[in-house]
Amino acid sequence: MSAAAPLTASTATVRDRLAEALPAIEDLLVAATDAVRAKVLVGGKLSAEALEREQRAAHGLAWFATYVESLRQLVSYADRLGEAGRYGPVEEALVEIGAAEYLAQIFGGIPMNQGEIVRLADLGVDARTAERARGAAAASLIESGSRPAVRRVVVDAMRRKTAAEIVGDSGLDETMEAFRAEMRRFAEEEVLPHAHEWHLANAYIPLEVIDKLAALGVFGLTIPEEFGGLGLGKESMCVVSEELSRAYIGVGSLGTRSEIAAELILCGGTDAQKAEWLPKIASGEVLPTAVFTEPNTGSDLGSLRTRAVKDGDVWKITGNKTWITHPVRADVMTVLARTEPDTTDYRGLSMFLAPKPRGSDEVPFPAEGISGGEIEVLGYRGMKEYEIAFDGFAVPAANLLGGVTGQGFKQLMQTFESARIQTAARAVGVAQSALDVGLAYAQERVQFGKPLIEFPRVADKLAMMAVEVNIARQLTYFSARQKDHDKRCDLEAGMAKLLGARVAWAAADNALQIHGGNGFALEYTVSRILCDARILNIFEGAAEIQAQVIARRLLDGR
Amino acid sequence: MSAAAPLTASTATVRDRLAEALPAIEDLLVAATDAVRAKVLVGGKLSAEALEREQRAAHGLAWFATYVESLRQLVSYADRLGEAGRYGPVEEALVEIGAAEYLAQIFGGIPMNQGEIVRLADLGVDARTAERARGAAAASLIESGSRPAVRRVVVDAMRRKTAAEIVGDSGLDETMEAFRAEMRRFAEEEVLPHAHEWHLANAYIPLEVIDKLAALGVFGLTIPEEFGGLGLGKESMCVVSEELSRAYIGVGSLGTRSEIAAELILCGGTDAQKAEWLPKIASGEVLPTAVFTEPNTGSDLGSLRTRAVKDGDVWKITGNKTWITHPVRADVMTVLARTEPDTTDYRGLSMFLAPKPRGSDEVPFPAEGISGGEIEVLGYRGMKEYEIAFDGFAVPAANLLGGVTGQGFKQLMQTFESARIQTAARAVGVAQSALDVGLAYAQERVQFGKPLIEFPRVADKLAMMAVEVNIARQLTYFSARQKDHDKRCDLEAGMAKLLGARVAWAAADNALQIHGGNGFALEYTVSRILCDARILNIFEGAAEIQAQVIARRLLDGR
Ligand SMILES: Cc1cc2nc3c(=O)[nH]c(=O)nc-3n(C[C@H](O)[C@H](O)[C@H](O)COP(=O)(O)OP(=O)(O)OC[C@H]3O[C@@H](n4cnc5c(N)ncnc54)[C@H](O)[C@@H]3O)c2cc1C
Ligand SMILES: Cc1cc2nc3c(=O)[nH]c(=O)nc-3n(C[C@H](O)[C@H](O)[C@H](O)COP(=O)(O)OP(=O)(O)OC[C@H]3O[C@@H](n4cnc5c(N)ncnc54)[C@H](O)[C@@H]3O)c2cc1C
Ligand SMILES: CC(C)(COP(=O)(O)OP(=O)(O)OC[C@H]1O[C@@H](n2cnc3c(N)ncnc32)[C@H](O)[C@@H]1OP(=O)(O)O)[C@@H](O)C(=O)NCCC(=O)NCCS
Ligand SMILES: CC(C)(COP(=O)(O)OP(=O)(O)OC[C@H]1O[C@@H](n2cnc3c(N)ncnc32)[C@H](O)[C@@H]1OP(=O)(O)O)[C@@H](O)C(=O)NCCC(=O)NCCS
Repeated sequence: MSAAAPLTASTATVRDRLAEALPAIEDLLVAATDAVRAKVLVGGKLSAEALEREQRAAHGLAWFATYVESLRQLVSYADRLGEAGRYGPVEEALVEIGAAEYLAQIFGGIPMNQGEIVRLADLGVDARTAERARGAAAASLIESGSRPAVRRVVVDAMRRKTAAEIVGDSGLDETMEAFRAEMRRFAEEEVLPHAHEWHLANAYIPLEVIDKLAALGVFGLTIPEEFGGLGLGKESMCVVSEELSRAYIGVGSLGTRSEIAAELILCGGTDAQKAEWLPKIASGEVLPTAVFTEPNTGSDLGSLRTRAVKDGDVWKITGNKTWITHPVRADVMTVLARTEPDTTDYRGLSMFLAPKPRGSDEVPFPAEGISGGEIEVLGYRGMKEYEIAFDGFAVPAANLLGGVTGQGFKQLMQTFESARIQTAARAVGVAQSALDVGLAYAQERVQFGKPLIEFPRVADKLAMMAVEVNIARQLTYFSARQKDHDKRCDLEAGMAKLLGARVAWAAADNALQIHGGNGFALEYTVSRILCDARILNIFEGAAEIQAQVIARRLLDGR
Repeated sequence: MSAAAPLTASTATVRDRLAEALPAIEDLLVAATDAVRAKVLVGGKLSAEALEREQRAAHGLAWFATYVESLRQLVSYADRLGEAGRYGPVEEALVEIGAAEYLAQIFGGIPMNQGEIVRLADLGVDARTAERARGAAAASLIESGSRPAVRRVVVDAMRRKTAAEIVGDSGLDETMEAFRAEMRRFAEEEVLPHAHEWHLANAYIPLEVIDKLAALGVFGLTIPEEFGGLGLGKESMCVVSEELSRAYIGVGSLGTRSEIAAELILCGGTDAQKAEWLPKIASGEVLPTAVFTEPNTGSDLGSLRTRAVKDGDVWKITGNKTWITHPVRADVMTVLARTEPDTTDYRGLSMFLAPKPRGSDEVPFPAEGISGGEIEVLGYRGMKEYEIAFDGFAVPAANLLGGVTGQGFKQLMQTFESARIQTAARAVGVAQSALDVGLAYAQERVQFGKPLIEFPRVADKLAMMAVEVNIARQLTYFSARQKDHDKRCDLEAGMAKLLGARVAWAAADNALQIHGGNGFALEYTVSRILCDARILNIFEGAAEIQAQVIARRLLDGR
């Protein structure tokens, strides 16, 4: 928020009204945080028991804070674009509608999902405090931003755009924009024309596509140059993940496991491990897979049971894992296992870099001590999901991450920040793809003598998708920039993931609705996008876990 | 609302507070209707153009009115159960939470879907009018009904119930309850154990199941006894459709086409047509299929192009139809076609009862002048969807419905009332099945050392599902009873369908979320329920069309 920036006349109103409304909303967030703290602090300390009992209030607070950060990022978006002379009427409309809608939801109820709408009263904020915070600026924005005419600005802009564009400025600088364009070109040539076939056939993404991505440097984007990467910031990872996921979530997710493995090694690996693995991960020569979840242990990862026992030069791993993405074609597994047999929580866990040979559908795991079976899934195909059983699977002693035991969970939690930012970007890409196909269909399909887009109920859906995709995008880029500052940012990453997943799911749902009956036909892309979008609220920390992470950070009062 | 009924002490508070709050809300609906009328009446008459421009306001009004009717039905539910001595704490909690949530949404924003939240201001109601309507009774209900303790009453009751039960009294009389139990027993034996296999294999529901349903009288429920049916009211159709759909939407939908055909013939057929077809439909000997939609004509059914030309003793039908459910195994098609070639709207349409031979997967349409191909779908399988091409397909002249041309559309619209009530019941069944599997999973799955149901975010989802299923159920039974009064009730039917479809979709979505990663596995039932639930907002009049139908009735001021 660079207050000194000169604003063009057109930016003044909306941006300024939002900036004027914000402090009272931020104060309201403080009041809400205090109100929830009063419920969950016992003797000045966060009580796990009270926090659990008060989940609705605590998670509601997480959502409220996510909205406040979203509003802040809209101001920042307007400012940055204003400075660059790129803030036009479409951007202003996106900001105005977004601000109006999120403010109205703050006061009227925030849908955490379909069914759980959380209101200020649930947080313990009394009606008078809420009313006072609304103030004239917020009320005027809610009023003006709900007018059909503002939505029309966005819809008209959408009708003019070509397929590759997004509506409204992305807010990225020129370098990143060029990057986006390059990724988009690649995706349009290599991915978009085939994604739906791959999905329907439950087929792997061809290795040639992976090779081409590797050649573009996708797997080494954020790996330092000294280790063969491009040494770029996390924002670049977002742009790449977003554009690839816009074509197909499977392709946009290929980099996730490389990101996790590289982060684990960068943050926690020994020099030898860095030298051995990072260049190969960066080049795409080594494909990693992430092996954490177990049949009985998903959200409560710290309690996992798979054990690793030192036996001479190797660690022997035994136990069951599940929901492992892309394991058959992977060359290395990042395995979280228990090395202190007497423990039951996160303190006894360690991380391993476990090499494995590539397998095939027929012989998925051609090695001693490892076997597995495929899990068939609704969406998010292209890499295949497996259950894996380890029975004394051997990992060289040198492959204990960082050479230390008992640090696995914390190493992973740090890494999850990046993974969740990347997942937020995937969500933005999926949401954008829903908007793309919804828009195209609404322009082509004629009913009652005109294209569907001319009906307000259809146009409104598209407008709201564009508005929310923009918000989720800005929040994601923000979390990426925060991560580059090298400080703990599970708060920001969690917000981006939490919001992004909801936005993607809503966008897919509404894009399908616009397709009417055809949306229900497997033949139409949108039927796949709906299935793909549904995963985002589940993996990399389910929505409820994400809200919990955010709430704890807010209430802890760092 | 029998005001004279003696209320038990426990019913007094919530029911009375709701009854006290209602008049102001009903007045607010009148104010909102006036406000929307001001936008859409031109010279005192509904302007199609203005109505289209003001869709958001008009459809928002439809939703608001649906909520008001829901609140009224909650009072009526409390009254009827109170009189019968069946109104206990669980029923009271369902009423209280439902009233609180729907009132809060009326004032804070009604989610027409994920993405389109409509607020009183959108309808043209000013803030002061809204504030005045809230009043003390509504405010107190919103406050008390949002308390975790009330949700706990519902969740505790759910944890005690067995799989076949529903939580809270259904509100049905004893005869209908016995009927429900019978259907439930059938469904648990013949349908539940196989539904998921049928879905995964994209297989037909076995003919034996259809035969058994026929033997139970399912296809003749509402057909008068003189024509071989059971002569029951529409409520019985709801109970049957609900319980069968709770096991599998495909089975719960087998009766839909029989209902449509029978209604068409009962309301519009000649005596000879009644005598010929009704007994066979009632017995299940004849399975009908409904042939209305065309590739270019879904919502705007009145503009369809398939034509029927009289040629001696037969009508020859030519044109393309699509999204035809269960046509291969059907014996008669109810075909809507254009008999007045110069027309382009509903006035030139006629309805035919077109006999056809049964086909197979290999030869789906073994007759002259008809061919077709399967449309693969996300869910709602078991009957199969087809595109059908007619090329001079011959229908005996005697099979023109009612022996009159030009009446087809109106005949169908009347019939759609029943079909939509039945669809609302299917939605209630699907929502209930989502609740069933979500509840079971939440009780079995342990995370962080306890069953998921002990976490408020999980329990809250289940509580809200139970509350909304109950509301949708009461609204559906209400619309069925209205239909039995033999007056036009597209308003009530539309409301039940509109709400039921949203409730089912939200329930499926949240039940899947409770399953975490497993919800995404094809192996788990909930992955199918999600797919099945998605159809409800699309067919039998998409949500936007349903809102339009309701809005027109409200604004017309009948
Ligand atoms: C397609 C797919 C790909 C995946 N890929 C990988 C992978 O590559 N590697 C890997 O290790 N894992 C992977 N996972 C696993 C994924 O991370 C887990 O599914 C996720 O962490 C949730 O765990 P769970 O499925 O066990 O759900 P559970 O933990 O059983 O949770 C079920 C539900 O309960 C809620 N819940 C749980 N605890 C609480 C609480 N305390 N309070 C409130 N609500 C709660 C959850 O939010 C969720 O809604 C994948 C999963 C899927 C579906
Ligand atoms: C599984 C399945 C089974 C079916 N079974 C049958 C069957 O047995 N027999 C049969 O005849 N038909 C059947 N149908 C067809 C069904 O009734 C149509 O799909 C439905 O009426 C919607 O029409 P459409 O698909 O052409 O969507 P469209 O009419 O193209 O509508 C697309 C979207 O635009 C919206 N829209 C359209 N017009 C307007 C407007 N004026 N204002 C605002 N929004 C608008 C719609 O609400 C929808 O969201 C079936 C469909 C499906 C998917
Ligand atoms: C639920 C969950 C958030 C944490 O649960 P938990 O067992 O209560 O653990 P805590 O939050 O208490 O954290 C344990 C330790 O890790 C530390 N930690 C947590 N997040 C951290 C982060 N982002 N950076 C650094 N340290 C972190 C904590 O500070 C704590 O250390 P301390 O005890 O020394 O303070 C975690 O299990 C989780 O994210 N689950 C979802 C699993 C998932 O995303 N799977 C995806 C697989 S692909
Ligand atoms: C959109 C829709 C509601 C009506 O659109 P429309 O073309 O504008 O038609 P109208 O509402 O003007 O109705 C046409 C006539 O039918 C009459 N009509 C409509 N609904 C009626 C009902 N429930 N009972 C009796 N008559 C009815 C109207 O009064 C009007 O007659 P009038 O001109 O003499 O007054 C209708 O096309 C529809 O329901 N579409 C969805 C299709 C669908 O559900 N398909 C499912 C296939 S399984």
